[in-house]
Amino acid sequence: MNHAPEHHTPQGVTAAAGFRAVGITAGLKASGTPDLALVVNDGPAKNAAAVFTTNRVAAAPIHWSRKVIADGRAEAVILNSGGANACTGAEGHANTRATAEATADALGVDAGDLLVCSTGLIGEQLPMDKITAGIGTACAALEAGSGPDGGADAATAIMTTDSVPKQAGFSCAGYAIGGMAKGAGMLAPGLATMLVVITTDAALEAPELDAALRAATRVSFDRADSDGCMSTNDTVLLLASGASGIRPDLAEFTDGLTGVCTDLAHQLIADAEGAAHEISIRSFNAASEDDAEEVSRSVARSNLFKTAIFGQDPNWGRVLSAVGTTAAAFDPDELDVAINGVQVCRAGGIGEDRSLVDLAGRKVLVEIDLHAGEAEATIWTNDLTHDYVHENSAYSS
Amino acid sequence: MNHAPEHHTPQGVTAAAGFRAVGITAGLKASGTPDLALVVNDGPAKNAAAVFTTNRVAAAPIHWSRKVIADGRAEAVILNSGGANACTGAEGHANTRATAEATADALGVDAGDLLVCSTGLIGEQLPMDKITAGIGTACAALEAGSGPDGGADAATAIMTTDSVPKQAGFSCAGYAIGGMAKGAGMLAPGLATMLVVITTDAALEAPELDAALRAATRVSFDRADSDGCMSTNDTVLLLASGASGIRPDLAEFTDGLTGVCTDLAHQLIADAEGAAHEISIRSFNAASEDDAEEVSRSVARSNLFKTAIFGQDPNWGRVLSAVGTTAAAFDPDELDVAINGVQVCRAGGIGEDRSLVDLAGRKVLVEIDLHAGEAEATIWTNDLTHDYVHENSAYSS
Repeated sequence: MNHAPEHHTPQGVTAAAGFRAVGITAGLKASGTPDLALVVNDGPAKNAAAVFTTNRVAAAPIHWSRKVIADGRAEAVILNSGGANACTGAEGHANTRATAEATADALGVDAGDLLVCSTGLIGEQLPMDKITAGIGTACAALEAGSGPDGGADAATAIMTTDSVPKQAGFSCAGYAIGGMAKGAGMLAPGLATMLVVITTDAALEAPELDAALRAATRVSFDRADSDGCMSTNDTVLLLASGASGIRPDLAEFTDGLTGVCTDLAHQLIADAEGAAHEISIRSFNAASEDDAEEVSRSVARSNLFKTAIFGQDPNWGRVLSAVGTTAAAFDPDELDVAINGVQVCRAGGIGEDRSLVDLAGRKVLVEIDLHAGEAEATIWTNDLTHDYVHENSAYSS
Repeated sequence: MNHAPEHHTPQGVTAAAGFRAVGITAGLKASGTPDLALVVNDGPAKNAAAVFTTNRVAAAPIHWSRKVIADGRAEAVILNSGGANACTGAEGHANTRATAEATADALGVDAGDLLVCSTGLIGEQLPMDKITAGIGTACAALEAGSGPDGGADAATAIMTTDSVPKQAGFSCAGYAIGGMAKGAGMLAPGLATMLVVITTDAALEAPELDAALRAATRVSFDRADSDGCMSTNDTVLLLASGASGIRPDLAEFTDGLTGVCTDLAHQLIADAEGAAHEISIRSFNAASEDDAEEVSRSVARSNLFKTAIFGQDPNWGRVLSAVGTTAAAFDPDELDVAINGVQVCRAGGIGEDRSLVDLAGRKVLVEIDLHAGEAEATIWTNDLTHDYVHENSAYSS
């Protein structure tokens, strides 16, 4: 079982001043668990930035939210689990628009400032009667006062196959950053979508938020690669209320934001369903950061390597096989590989006795020395297990 | 269980005139099954061509055989299972050389004309005492007359996790082509190496053989992609004795060779361990053959798609998710997908009822209409199953 990590700063989308949130049950999921979340920015600023899946088969809410975010302004986010609204044609686009309009009407804002996120099975239409009723319930709950648990409730309502809600937070010099995540995206099996909403009360303009968010996601969510599968719905949103009145140094803010994103990315890997190991693959002494990332990602995507780790087999030959498929700068006769601190491969050949490697624990560290420069990068992934196969073969049936 | 297909022409490496082969037990494998094969070209011509793994971490025998084949001439091939001789450093290179020299001495030929292939676990040295003794046994058996079963014995001796030996043949207008294959390369789990030896008595020069082999492998072995993992040892060899005296039209010969390679590639996919389905992914109406291949391969490498097929779930959303990650020319709103003849996705959206798809059988056909041109390509792959995970987590321990 996974346990949520202990945190010492306020967590989640209501940690920052100027935000309210709720999570309710609209009846979209057969399980009867919460499935609709709403996050509202009360300002004074309504600045926002976002990164979306690069999958060309993008869900209807991705198309909608890309347009909403284009002017760097957003009032609120409505999120549903229980249906991805992907590959649903014109009806799907109309349903996303109707979701935004119903929420905007209830909040008294413009639908063009309403972000929409969906997650669940691809290729099925959303039950709009339940969505519409749920939006009414959510807005009424918000009006009545969402209380201190609003952020946690929202984090629970966006869960699909997640076993725990995921929240993170950062505070510094009078401003706060908080976030929630679910899933899945390129990551846990089953529902295959990562949704992340991050809020801050820092006073930053939309272009600044955009720069900070791209810098932070590049070294956090982009490096969590559980099963190599990119979703049609992946979304990371950043909303800024300016309610703290603090205008932080952008580099410092980016560092804090990166910390929040990295914390959430680690929680996603730790909770990836069907996984028995959390694996960090660090390539170092690379000619470039891109080289290091390519090498680590190639290993992270090798099914032979991933099954070996599941079997507690420190099979470094499968690491080298994956490294050898990349275009990174290295000499095959100089590669060193250590697994959990034991240097099983030295100079491209046999190193320490593989039986010295202990893979009984949940955490695994693979370190690849490319002897080609000074750059490094780490990719976080999971092993490939019987439970992964079970989860994903049984999901939609 | 798999069954070898029925063939109506002579099969294997001794189907063509001018070749002898043996397969014997050298004691390299704990199982005690045959593990050393020898194929000898008695001429009159000794022309040869080869394609090797593009993995930059290449095994010692790959480095050796690349040099042997450089002049387009080879006398014989010695192949062992029970050890890949990959990532074995200077000692590994010396062992490959010693294997070639011992075989060449026994045959009375130049070691520089002796091709070497190895398959098995990466990162362990070969037991050279057993290899050397085995070479003596193999050459003595060959000298005593290998008999009509020599090709079949060789095909058996190169097996690793294969459940059946794999042979194919083609004959036309007075000349023959025959071949054997084992494995694994980017394909079956476990031992992760594909070795193929093809012989012909056609009278063709080395550059012609090279052109024909590259054309044939491009549309056969290169399109069999069971698990996306490229081996350190993959090798396809083509030896020509000229013993038929026939000099065929090169295009006709290439067609015949492509047929033999495709037959062997299908046998590899059919025997991939741990697989419950043999999946053909055909992309058509593509702007180019490269586009079609990229789209089909992307689907073939999606673990979510592969587990769905194992679960007999016609989850076309996972097909579209994989298609959407490619750079191929298509409009997401025009994509059509059929699974076993049922058009489950039409114009990027919901098509026929997915419950109409029958996935109980072993063969699965996925057809993706890109509506972007007239080119097509098919990739053959397997599903991702509990047995795959079991095989590969248990292999080296």
